[in-house]
Amino acid sequence: MKIAVLGTGIVGRTLAGGLSDRGHAVTMGTRDVAETLARSETDAMGNQPFAQWHAGHSNVQLVAFDEATPTADLVINATSGQASLAALEAGASGLDDKVLVDVANPLDFSHGMPPTLSVANTDSLAEQIQQKFPRSKVVKALNTMNARLMVEPSRLPESHNVFIAGDDDAAKKTVRDLLQELGWKDENIVDVGGIQAARGLEMYLPLWLSLMGKLGTPDFNIRLVRA
Amino acid sequence: MKIAVLGTGIVGRTLAGGLSDRGHAVTMGTRDVAETLARSETDAMGNQPFAQWHAGHSNVQLVAFDEATPTADLVINATSGQASLAALEAGASGLDDKVLVDVANPLDFSHGMPPTLSVANTDSLAEQIQQKFPRSKVVKALNTMNARLMVEPSRLPESHNVFIAGDDDAAKKTVRDLLQELGWKDENIVDVGGIQAARGLEMYLPLWLSLMGKLGTPDFNIRLVRA
Repeated sequence: MKIAVLGTGIVGRTLAGGLSDRGHAVTMGTRDVAETLARSETDAMGNQPFAQWHAGHSNVQLVAFDEATPTADLVINATSGQASLAALEAGASGLDDKVLVDVANPLDFSHGMPPTLSVANTDSLAEQIQQKFPRSKVVKALNTMNARLMVEPSRLPESHNVFIAGDDDAAKKTVRDLLQELGWKDENIVDVGGIQAARGLEMYLPLWLSLMGKLGTPDFNIRLVRA
Repeated sequence: MKIAVLGTGIVGRTLAGGLSDRGHAVTMGTRDVAETLARSETDAMGNQPFAQWHAGHSNVQLVAFDEATPTADLVINATSGQASLAALEAGASGLDDKVLVDVANPLDFSHGMPPTLSVANTDSLAEQIQQKFPRSKVVKALNTMNARLMVEPSRLPESHNVFIAGDDDAAKKTVRDLLQELGWKDENIVDVGGIQAARGLEMYLPLWLSLMGKLGTPDFNIRLVRA
């Protein structure tokens, strides 16, 4: 499948690398290719500059947002939540009738740590995206965990869950299949409902952030336990 | 221990019954004792009228909010989130220097289903309670699950977690001990931080509600899975 991954941060890189490793033709989209490639410093989280990562993943193409989406069969939004609507607007010409996997979280760091959500409770980023691009088929997925777990769920010693939400059942089936390629067992993929259910998936983030702080690692996830 | 449980709904009843069964002297607080006892119909969830429940739990005393808190060693807020501040205000004379366990969720059903939160993201019900009653020691706990699980965690076949948040470490230790009496293993009680971390615990509710809808039962919880 031709997949466009929008966003060149650690989430975008991890998904692009993981999907490329599984044989997909992955193109990454960024706002300004020259600027992205020119960065020479590690980011605030200690991640290497994009160009350095890219040197080891030369089969992944880097293009501008508006070049990434038109040729893709499926688009993944892995931009930061605050930049997502603008990034998708830039790539809007290639979104119609496509599955758009939204893994972003609308984290707002402008008021310090811990971040708040820029949208919550009565709306969600995923709903805003679906509303702004009504011909795309938005599926919220993977936003409830660290990037490495997204593409390597077996890092954890027990089974754990990934949640999906969206209004289009066929699109959710496509995402479910893609998740299985990434190592997720079908029974661990939990469909929580329509796109409005993305609110709950995004509003889980404050708890995730507290847990990361307390556990001292992002290498954890949750598992549903049923009677 | 003398425990005051504020609220006579299913959460208050379940906690009062469970704590009474473990030998605690439990008093339940309500706004209007006569009115609470006079109710003769099942509620919207199909729960029996309070008087009927009370007939089987005669060792639990029912009094007004302002009579429940002064004699208690520990107070539990199990009122509905929208009524919590008024209920605690009514019992304010008995809150100073006491551990106040807040199990309520600020669910707002006024806009239909699913409910939104009346406070979220930049504040929480638990923080509002702590701010309004600064001499109490608020510990958010147990709000992330169905009432029956609170007092009978072994209902589920695998271990799962209860989260606590609060600014007072001694108060959290008291709550941790109480949770162990209710059947929670110490390693399954996760301290997520100060009272501000209650935001994450309350904001988990929309996901919990989606999951309840999808699973068709409230008899589930989550378990942390670590590397």
